[in-house]
Amino acid sequence: MLNHNFHDVISQEGIVAIVSWGNGEPHVVNTWNSYLIIQENDKILIPAAGMRKTQANTEINDKVKLTVGSREEGGKKMGRGFLLEGTAKFLKSGPEYDLMKAKCPFTNRVLIVTVTSVTKTL
Amino acid sequence: MLNHNFHDVISQEGIVAIVSWGNGEPHVVNTWNSYLIIQENDKILIPAAGMRKTQANTEINDKVKLTVGSREEGGKKMGRGFLLEGTAKFLKSGPEYDLMKAKCPFTNRVLIVTVTSVTKTL
Repeated sequence: MLNHNFHDVISQEGIVAIVSWGNGEPHVVNTWNSYLIIQENDKILIPAAGMRKTQANTEINDKVKLTVGSREEGGKKMGRGFLLEGTAKFLKSGPEYDLMKAKCPFTNRVLIVTVTSVTKTL
Repeated sequence: MLNHNFHDVISQEGIVAIVSWGNGEPHVVNTWNSYLIIQENDKILIPAAGMRKTQANTEINDKVKLTVGSREEGGKKMGRGFLLEGTAKFLKSGPEYDLMKAKCPFTNRVLIVTVTSVTKTL
């Protein structure tokens, strides 16, 4: 699912957009590529300090869409971007939380996205 | 509206997320910071080669949300990200189109976003 091209992209620093939607209009928050922890080839752990509206949305509808991209790919200036679709849950304890807390001490929950599809956008 | 911090951010290369929504779930597409043309302090021109679903959504609901960000800001590794809200229209001719066509020859329309709010996300 999350192949070597994806790993190439997020090995560069860049901004991640996280889109959630409940009953109202979509909500968008950001994080950095360097904050992500990838697990089991389809799970992305994201630190959450705020993200209260995102959490409220995912309690209504757990679907989320993320985009990531980098202009550098495999050392070449070509650029690649991905749209990831998946489902989200927020946890405030447990092994994923502990792992993220060790990496990003500012976090107070961990957002776990289970990726169900990956599409190239750029 | 689009202040010097915003210009600092987009002077670095990075990925832009563009979120639109009509009657269904939100749709997200991407472009690069370096493709943008900023006009009149509240207008962003974006090249559109595909973006057919985005265009269809904006014909139902012209609101869009964009995020941009860069880990470098004013030469410092602090990082800043912005959520821009605004309204969108697609044009396939006219001065904005000509300007974008000269910058990005692959474009076949120009997406013009009139920004109505800017919020710091990172």
